Amino acid sequence: MLKVLKFGGTSVGSLDRIQNVANIIKKIRDEGHDVIAVVSAMSGETNKLIEYAEYFSKDPKKSELDMLLSSGERVTSALLSIALNEQGYKAVSMSGRQAGIVTDNSYTKARIENINTKSMKKAISEGKIIIVAGFQGITEEGRVSTLGRGGSDLTAVAIAGAIEADVCEIYTDVDGIYTTDPRIEPKAKKLDKISYDEMLELASLGAKVLQNRSVEMAKKLNVNLVSRSSFTPEVEGTLITKEENIMEKPVVSGIALDKNQIRVGMYGVADKPGIAAAIFTSLADENINVDMIVQTVGVDGETDLDFTIPTTDFEACKRVMEKFKKDAGNIDYNDSICKVSIVGVGMKSHTGVASKAFTTLAQENINIRIISTSEIKISMIIEEKYAELAVRSLHDAYNLDK
Amino acid sequence: MLKVLKFGGTSVGSLDRIQNVANIIKKIRDEGHDVIAVVSAMSGETNKLIEYAEYFSKDPKKSELDMLLSSGERVTSALLSIALNEQGYKAVSMSGRQAGIVTDNSYTKARIENINTKSMKKAISEGKIIIVAGFQGITEEGRVSTLGRGGSDLTAVAIAGAIEADVCEIYTDVDGIYTTDPRIEPKAKKLDKISYDEMLELASLGAKVLQNRSVEMAKKLNVNLVSRSSFTPEVEGTLITKEENIMEKPVVSGIALDKNQIRVGMYGVADKPGIAAAIFTSLADENINVDMIVQTVGVDGETDLDFTIPTTDFEACKRVMEKFKKDAGNIDYNDSICKVSIVGVGMKSHTGVASKAFTTLAQENINIRIISTSEIKISMIIEEKYAELAVRSLHDAYNLDK
Repeated sequence: MLKVLKFGGTSVGSLDRIQNVANIIKKIRDEGHDVIAVVSAMSGETNKLIEYAEYFSKDPKKSELDMLLSSGERVTSALLSIALNEQGYKAVSMSGRQAGIVTDNSYTKARIENINTKSMKKAISEGKIIIVAGFQGITEEGRVSTLGRGGSDLTAVAIAGAIEADVCEIYTDVDGIYTTDPRIEPKAKKLDKISYDEMLELASLGAKVLQNRSVEMAKKLNVNLVSRSSFTPEVEGTLITKEENIMEKPVVSGIALDKNQIRVGMYGVADKPGIAAAIFTSLADENINVDMIVQTVGVDGETDLDFTIPTTDFEACKRVMEKFKKDAGNIDYNDSICKVSIVGVGMKSHTGVASKAFTTLAQENINIRIISTSEIKISMIIEEKYAELAVRSLHDAYNLDK
Repeated sequence: MLKVLKFGGTSVGSLDRIQNVANIIKKIRDEGHDVIAVVSAMSGETNKLIEYAEYFSKDPKKSELDMLLSSGERVTSALLSIALNEQGYKAVSMSGRQAGIVTDNSYTKARIENINTKSMKKAISEGKIIIVAGFQGITEEGRVSTLGRGGSDLTAVAIAGAIEADVCEIYTDVDGIYTTDPRIEPKAKKLDKISYDEMLELASLGAKVLQNRSVEMAKKLNVNLVSRSSFTPEVEGTLITKEENIMEKPVVSGIALDKNQIRVGMYGVADKPGIAAAIFTSLADENINVDMIVQTVGVDGETDLDFTIPTTDFEACKRVMEKFKKDAGNIDYNDSICKVSIVGVGMKSHTGVASKAFTTLAQENINIRIISTSEIKISMIIEEKYAELAVRSLHDAYNLDK
């Protein structure tokens, strides 16, 4: 098999952690697999370099920042290659450029345009282990670019797609995707398999582990992703794959919790045509991610509008809403809420999933403020103080610990 | 003018030292010059990376070591470019590759094969200040290589030669080349100008400042070198140039001292033909740099052979001499000696320079053990304990403080 492995910052966070990664790679190599390993900078390095840059400028020139930040991953890739060569393995480090990764010119958040796999294929055919410096590429003009947050995961997934690897294993410090956050529900179980779409909906469970951008790319390129731990490499991780590859589909796969939500309420909005459209267009123009929306029209013809936004967009949202003050009787913001979601591809063909959720929360006297449903997800906005109770009781109701 | 400036590790040793370098560059730019600055890694960085590599291997794979070590200069070049852009100057960092520096495959001590100046010329024509990461290039196969000790100086000189710069200024923490080591003779004077050949002979005075490899390349490429300090940029440095460019040639330019010499004596060598040749061939085969040689044939037909080697070659020399033990009555090694040299292009046309040296030392009761002379240098081996006295009295005898 051709395996692409990705090791994040904590997995290569010290010299002996790098040695540990070398041992993982050796073992996989000894099992007869071809290996391309993608590495991040040692944890703390990138932040140190950003601090250096900020000594000179609050807004460092982006193309220069990329030249600066790309050095951290190069260091890790060279060290890992040195460790493998020392033990008699043929390994070769490659920068983004050497690995053939071409991006657009959007420095600090570049998009991969294509990957010329020639050098990598040649090295593989020569029996070499390839160590790619993640997070970086090169523009058409030959300047170094970086891919932004989670960039090394993208490098790994894009390489796995381009070179048609059998699997792309993402190593972090957690050993897979759980039915819910084990810090909230100790009975949470690690999932063996999960579909791309479920993973995207469970983002809050896996955000530390897998960013949506990488999962989306894996789905698009049809890459089998595995989330596993470099601290316990003997533990099988969670496979994230096409729905068709999952034989036994559970009705519900997991319970996600998101506390970083703010509920915006507009009460007594004048019943002018298009007012809701105008509000949401303005919010979209400011790149504010509106999540759940409920609109209720009262008997007096006045409208109440409820929606949620991420906490990070709060200030921007307030600025936009200022413009619509004249249209509403009252606008209020509530950050003491949270979003609990039930996710599972099995829902599509099962009835009663939603009603079980409502019943379960009702039994605990938890009021649901907003509900939104999709084919594979039911999300509910509730008071934040009930967050953990709601997660535990839903986890139990769907028998996720079994 | 087009100026190539080179800033070494101590000149960019901290963030505020880098800011200081930005200020020097701005001033030169404001005077209307085009600028290409070549930078080293921040002092300590390269050693830190070597320590990292040695954690994994006593003899790290050289091509990977180069990938590793090249990152330090990239960081400095990006930071300096960020500092200049912040202050409204158009600056662009370039790695060795981006600057068009192609080397051979001798990783960790690569030789520059050619420089494609296209990118640099384009950037200059766009009014940009170029900041080149020193010490590194790229092989024909596209792998990163480094140039070994003093590599950033070589980068600067090679670029200055290839792009036909008007001057190549090497900034360190000393402000030029002195008539002798000021720690020995406080009356030592800074030289305004000196020829390449004199600089090469004065290596011991300038070794910290300019390595012979760079001076040789400057001579070959006809590059005007200036040695000056980034700590006192207002002080004019020393120009190292062609002899023809130096109007007023002093008889003696400086007094050099080298304490890192060992004298090897072979006494009572059998008068076999070719024995001396065999010894020196064997030493050369081991890359031992034999400096001064004296051979004396006694009345009995036996030969005494005296020569000096650098202290660093001592162990290797002893191994070679072991093979010739049978040919000599006695071999001894003396490390309590030193070499004092009088250097000056004016000697060629002046008589009496050598006799003045011998007289001066005789007056101080200093015995000369070995003498060797060239067109522009007289070197003498004396007892090490007289080193400082000899330097001071010769400095005085040739009126170098005037």
